[in-house]
Amino acid sequence: MPQTFPLNAWYAAAYDIEVRRALMPRTICNKKLVFYRRSDDSVVALEDACWHRMLPLSMGHLDGDNVVCGYHGLIYNSAGRCVHMPSQETLNPSACVRAYPVVEKHRFIWIWLGNPALADPAKVPDLHWNQDPEWVGDGKVIHAKCDYRLVIDNLMDLTHETFVHGSSIGQRAVAEAPFEATHDEREAVVTRWMADVDPPPFWAYQLHKKNGKVERCDRWQIVHFEAPCTVAIDVGVAPSGTGAPEGDRSQGVNGYVLNTITPETDTTCHYFWAFCRNYNLHDQGLTQWLRESVTRVFGEDEVVVEAQQRAILDYPDREFYNLNIDAGAMWARRQIDRMIAAESKDSAPIIPIRSVTR
Amino acid sequence: MPQTFPLNAWYAAAYDIEVRRALMPRTICNKKLVFYRRSDDSVVALEDACWHRMLPLSMGHLDGDNVVCGYHGLIYNSAGRCVHMPSQETLNPSACVRAYPVVEKHRFIWIWLGNPALADPAKVPDLHWNQDPEWVGDGKVIHAKCDYRLVIDNLMDLTHETFVHGSSIGQRAVAEAPFEATHDEREAVVTRWMADVDPPPFWAYQLHKKNGKVERCDRWQIVHFEAPCTVAIDVGVAPSGTGAPEGDRSQGVNGYVLNTITPETDTTCHYFWAFCRNYNLHDQGLTQWLRESVTRVFGEDEVVVEAQQRAILDYPDREFYNLNIDAGAMWARRQIDRMIAAESKDSAPIIPIRSVTR
Amino acid sequence: MPQTFPLNAWYAAAYDIEVRRALMPRTICNKKLVFYRRSDDSVVALEDACWHRMLPLSMGHLDGDNVVCGYHGLIYNSAGRCVHMPSQETLNPSACVRAYPVVEKHRFIWIWLGNPALADPAKVPDLHWNQDPEWVGDGKVIHAKCDYRLVIDNLMDLTHETFVHGSSIGQRAVAEAPFEATHDEREAVVTRWMADVDPPPFWAYQLHKKNGKVERCDRWQIVHFEAPCTVAIDVGVAPSGTGAPEGDRSQGVNGYVLNTITPETDTTCHYFWAFCRNYNLHDQGLTQWLRESVTRVFGEDEVVVEAQQRAILDYPDREFYNLNIDAGAMWARRQIDRMIAAESKDSAPIIPIRSVTR
Repeated sequence: MPQTFPLNAWYAAAYDIEVRRALMPRTICNKKLVFYRRSDDSVVALEDACWHRMLPLSMGHLDGDNVVCGYHGLIYNSAGRCVHMPSQETLNPSACVRAYPVVEKHRFIWIWLGNPALADPAKVPDLHWNQDPEWVGDGKVIHAKCDYRLVIDNLMDLTHETFVHGSSIGQRAVAEAPFEATHDEREAVVTRWMADVDPPPFWAYQLHKKNGKVERCDRWQIVHFEAPCTVAIDVGVAPSGTGAPEGDRSQGVNGYVLNTITPETDTTCHYFWAFCRNYNLHDQGLTQWLRESVTRVFGEDEVVVEAQQRAILDYPDREFYNLNIDAGAMWARRQIDRMIAAESKDSAPIIPIRSVTR
Repeated sequence: MPQTFPLNAWYAAAYDIEVRRALMPRTICNKKLVFYRRSDDSVVALEDACWHRMLPLSMGHLDGDNVVCGYHGLIYNSAGRCVHMPSQETLNPSACVRAYPVVEKHRFIWIWLGNPALADPAKVPDLHWNQDPEWVGDGKVIHAKCDYRLVIDNLMDLTHETFVHGSSIGQRAVAEAPFEATHDEREAVVTRWMADVDPPPFWAYQLHKKNGKVERCDRWQIVHFEAPCTVAIDVGVAPSGTGAPEGDRSQGVNGYVLNTITPETDTTCHYFWAFCRNYNLHDQGLTQWLRESVTRVFGEDEVVVEAQQRAILDYPDREFYNLNIDAGAMWARRQIDRMIAAESKDSAPIIPIRSVTR
Repeated sequence: MPQTFPLNAWYAAAYDIEVRRALMPRTICNKKLVFYRRSDDSVVALEDACWHRMLPLSMGHLDGDNVVCGYHGLIYNSAGRCVHMPSQETLNPSACVRAYPVVEKHRFIWIWLGNPALADPAKVPDLHWNQDPEWVGDGKVIHAKCDYRLVIDNLMDLTHETFVHGSSIGQRAVAEAPFEATHDEREAVVTRWMADVDPPPFWAYQLHKKNGKVERCDRWQIVHFEAPCTVAIDVGVAPSGTGAPEGDRSQGVNGYVLNTITPETDTTCHYFWAFCRNYNLHDQGLTQWLRESVTRVFGEDEVVVEAQQRAILDYPDREFYNLNIDAGAMWARRQIDRMIAAESKDSAPIIPIRSVTR
């Protein structure tokens, strides 16, 4: 099977609050790992299989900053080196499990599974809205039974809102308004403005919360992709004619949908998301309403992408076709493919995509 | 894996009442299909995967006689041609899903998955009893986790009634009475008469319903196989000496057990059946009693054929052996094998059968 | 896949009480078998698939000492020969299922699946404590989802008690006390004495039962392995200084943990165990307490060995490493490997083990 993801990349492994002074198993990119915090709160990620007899270390316990295997008591320090064996004085120098670079940033724990010499913390994807004091929000993690790239495809083309999310954020204009797709080496951007439309329920609620009334609006969706798997979407509405397309969003409401989708295996992923806003910052009820509304919306996407994954497995010889609407996804896929190709000569996209002449 | 079924054949896809003005997914012969009725009540069968990104079309909705994909709103007409794409004026000429010939007959929807040029509606198997005004009956569909041919084997040799259905239709005579097996190119017939026997409970109940009393009978089973997977069985009992073997069944009770078994995959099938009778036509309680009695009997068969399937998968190198009682099944299998061989050079029976010298 | 077990060996197939005048299916060493008792109480083991159409014979019924197939009524005698076919006078001479040598001994039913000429009842493993009048005990069978050899490894190195069974039989001394490992062609023995220790809860309870008080003790574990899969462990404690290490155990309490682990498939096993003691023989409450206490302890082991099995399947290229504590398991594995190699040129241990220089 061709490689479906690059290894030289920072992947979100967990929300910061998921990792505590306890052993937490999680599979990332087909590797079984165990995470925990040291007494100084820094996060450790180790291979989750004892060197001796492969019992998952996550079935053991912490002893200070070390991990004790739950079968025979071998002890590993947080660099993965075995520092104690039962009934034995001399420790074999090969006795260790692999440790991986970890960075904590923007409320996520990020892990680097590739060449550690390339693990530059400055390259962690930009999801700063998730802890910027001018924004507030909340999110969750979805365990989706699909190739992470199907979620990327989904986010890079929002015309599906019309058909999948008709009761919340979808409207005909999303499928009909023109859009623009641009890209560089590691990023791709899809921009869509819908002029003077009735805001759908998700946005009408927010407009009313902020302005006390609902009126026709200019609506925007600006999708930023950062390879291989992070998508930050600038979304909002502002009353028609108040200058939003020209840059004055002050009369409207604005949110950022933050998404970073980490491969668990070739056909499953951890989908981390948050929704942040920059108005009514102290309205906790609104934070909760937004989190649960987006939970419902993404639940609708989950049904679709998991059905796609089953279809891919059922029809291994079939190809995807690209329409105009897939321009953003197409660039995202190319950037992912290029990262994989840079790591391996054997690599190829798992789902061949044939471009259709427009 | 060798082909287990021919494609150039009419297969029952559904009972007529199962297909309505809604999208119904069903897998037939390893193909995922979606069925629905047009506004004129005619039935459509399409490949159940959008050309664009493979979402099952059955997850979308009907728009008049067209199907709208539930992901990006591509619209297909009932010939499978895409007639609308979002955000796009020009439609790629390759944008279509396959449509299959369908015929509605004898209360079933029949589909042809092979060469459409060969799809002659006159070749739909004869199950006319299912809507003949002189007969009345009812049936169900069983989802059996076995190769459809194991059900054919089961129906072509009714000696198993003695061992599997001892409390309803089985009796020693079924396993002991002589039988005759004949065949031509597409059909095979097994005829068994049991002279002057006590009718078992299933038949005693019916005799009493019609005649008001139960007495010793001549019992018959005439099994008609029509390749590749339809079996109509003429069954009944008549009081001994009233002339049934010579052709006068007027003093007895007669039923037709209609069976057509459609491969779902190589190891699962849709087993459609009905039981029709030609007496006491307006007794709805009797119709219900017969339907539920046969449901119980076929539930006993299901346990057996599914256990056989598991054994076949557990012992891939083992062969079936044929006894005298398997003469009818042997001819049925040969006709199926011949149909498969006519379509493909690679074909071979999935379960090699060695004939035993009698 | 390389062979994981020898066939020329007696395997425990069942506790004696499990096999009755009824058909009992059980898979041993990847073979599906059916067991039953004849009218003279002797046990029969046959291949569990009818010669004709592979229905499991265990789905049929007994007719005297014969088995009647539940599909078409073929009858097999207890040697596996077909003695009756429906509607047929002449029986094909090939019509039989394989019968296997069986011995009943020490409350277990033992089966020999290899060359029957080698099936010497004198070679049944020694578990005589299970019916010796000077000992009393009880046990159970665990269905463990792992290679039987992982259970052998577990039993040959009891240092794991410290980490896996901390609330019952574990204590630091088990992981720290020196031990001795010896072996010959078919057996391996690991001996560990812990001088003057506080008895852990499992032993304190028994000491109090026998002596009315608990005090510091000398504790012993003497593990006897008999290839390929039987482990009898002589365990106990005696008050410190009462002479147990020198041979006088009269002041202490002694038990035998009997274990014989039969492969079901390459990755599952039937783990038969019993715990026998030679004091307070008539205390049925103690028998029950011991049986349920050991049930809890072995439940803790089951979690570990099943997690190991999943890890082995997840990491097919990984090796096990041996520590000093694995000396006994290493000899056991070598004896198993030698038995397998003697049967087949293709054989190799399923889990390569690399010895670590101490």
